[in-house]
Amino acid sequence: MQVGIDIGGTRIKGGLVNDLGSIIYSLEIDTEAEKVYAEVLENIFSLIDRIFSFALKNNIALNSIGIGIPGLADPNSDWAIYCTNLNWNNVPLGIDIKNMYHLPVKISNDATVACLGESICGITKDSSNSLFITLGTGVGGGIIINDKLYFGSNGVGSELGHMVVGENFYNCSCGKNGCWETFVSATALVKYGKYLLEQGLDSRLSSVKMSTRDIFDWAQKGDPLALEITKRFVKYLSIGIVNTINVIDPSIIAIGGGMAHGMKFLLSDIQDEVSKNILYKTLPYGEIKISQLINDAGIIGAAMLHKLI
Amino acid sequence: MQVGIDIGGTRIKGGLVNDLGSIIYSLEIDTEAEKVYAEVLENIFSLIDRIFSFALKNNIALNSIGIGIPGLADPNSDWAIYCTNLNWNNVPLGIDIKNMYHLPVKISNDATVACLGESICGITKDSSNSLFITLGTGVGGGIIINDKLYFGSNGVGSELGHMVVGENFYNCSCGKNGCWETFVSATALVKYGKYLLEQGLDSRLSSVKMSTRDIFDWAQKGDPLALEITKRFVKYLSIGIVNTINVIDPSIIAIGGGMAHGMKFLLSDIQDEVSKNILYKTLPYGEIKISQLINDAGIIGAAMLHKLI
Repeated sequence: MQVGIDIGGTRIKGGLVNDLGSIIYSLEIDTEAEKVYAEVLENIFSLIDRIFSFALKNNIALNSIGIGIPGLADPNSDWAIYCTNLNWNNVPLGIDIKNMYHLPVKISNDATVACLGESICGITKDSSNSLFITLGTGVGGGIIINDKLYFGSNGVGSELGHMVVGENFYNCSCGKNGCWETFVSATALVKYGKYLLEQGLDSRLSSVKMSTRDIFDWAQKGDPLALEITKRFVKYLSIGIVNTINVIDPSIIAIGGGMAHGMKFLLSDIQDEVSKNILYKTLPYGEIKISQLINDAGIIGAAMLHKLI
Repeated sequence: MQVGIDIGGTRIKGGLVNDLGSIIYSLEIDTEAEKVYAEVLENIFSLIDRIFSFALKNNIALNSIGIGIPGLADPNSDWAIYCTNLNWNNVPLGIDIKNMYHLPVKISNDATVACLGESICGITKDSSNSLFITLGTGVGGGIIINDKLYFGSNGVGSELGHMVVGENFYNCSCGKNGCWETFVSATALVKYGKYLLEQGLDSRLSSVKMSTRDIFDWAQKGDPLALEITKRFVKYLSIGIVNTINVIDPSIIAIGGGMAHGMKFLLSDIQDEVSKNILYKTLPYGEIKISQLINDAGIIGAAMLHKLI
């Protein structure tokens, strides 16, 4: 069996996954991202220790450890190159874990890993070419081409959040203006909400504690400001989806990440908007769907990294 | 040997291509795009007749005919689905040519075909993953992934010109606002030039006979309006290139089409602008180059359609 670890900015999730992609055992702990790398690594070790302990008690043989990180990994060296949320810059994560547990280790980006999980036993499992979009604090992506994860020539592709799709009232953290992430991430929706409140628009949304959950709840209750936020969200989410269809033409576009399930009530609006803006209106194009695995895609995909790349 | 035909809105080019991708014989005629399909088809027949006559005189055996069209082809039925410049809408081009010449026929989009030509014996020939951008009246594209042309799941991908990259002062012919083609095509540059002249900007460029050649010539002589046009061209060309790197991360981004050679003086500005806007500034990414084959990519790529897809 394989160990899958999904390291997020807030929580670290881990589990034991069998060859079919089913989770046999899982648990999670706080990341404590504010601490230095060595201390976060201790947290990861403590979680893996508990998985090893469970495996030992149940006579389960472990073959490998796969890890999803919220940033960029070097597939050749097992170093984590950048993880902004964790303040990691070139840390030897894969090497440290390999030295501790004496098992093969693979690391990849969390959106890539979730994309792999969905393609093994989730919404994209019957699709040779699929696109996976994660909507959360930021926007990430994963691409499956010809039944395999696609990493590009330099391992810097599927960074869908930094595709420029328009002009925005604030710049992206990457320095550019108009990145998709600044229109459709959770951060972007809250920023736009606060921006509208500052313009004096009346709303039941408070600027102090605004979350995407509040925005989606109040939009469904008809709050004009929340509706303005979701209208813009639908517009720009659709622009980015049509862009990806115009480039790689996947058979399924799956939406995952923390926002995916809360936005289900907007799915038909998004599908309508895409159908209006698609280039060849009489020809088929990829279906837009919400991901299936929710919180498990990261653990399953990480565990399966050894099997499928 | 293979016959390759490159149908454009103005001229039809054709030739005989050997297995190494070298053109042995070529010629071209006017398309007469204003005429109906049956008459344009007669022009195509007259050109193929001359190629067959040359082959007969020189004892050359012909194996297949490949065709590039300025629009969308159905790879399964050999129909041309859309060719806006030729006013074609579902015409049985491949079937008509097959019935006339009794050879296997394949049809594909002209940018896809040029992409294939460059990958066989042009600028992208050593690259497993490459992107080919054609800049001309419109903007097209072709994608090579794992050494093969990539057609996507529904044959509607690599339509790079309709990727939304910003907000523009006029809408695209497809109905959307902000398509890449409305910022960086020859049409777009002339439109922007005329728009600036209407704003009263002084220039040696005349609104009556403005071409991209005039714009590039006067920009190199320091005309302020021509410089403003090329500045905006560099900005948006770079935004689109960075978008494609952020999605598919090719090892080479090759620029072809009618504008490619005239814009060589802007290449280093484009490379600088891309390097400023790339997401991972310390990591390698695809090189940006001007295509090599110029006018021959279409004939070579069309002829090789039978060999390589």
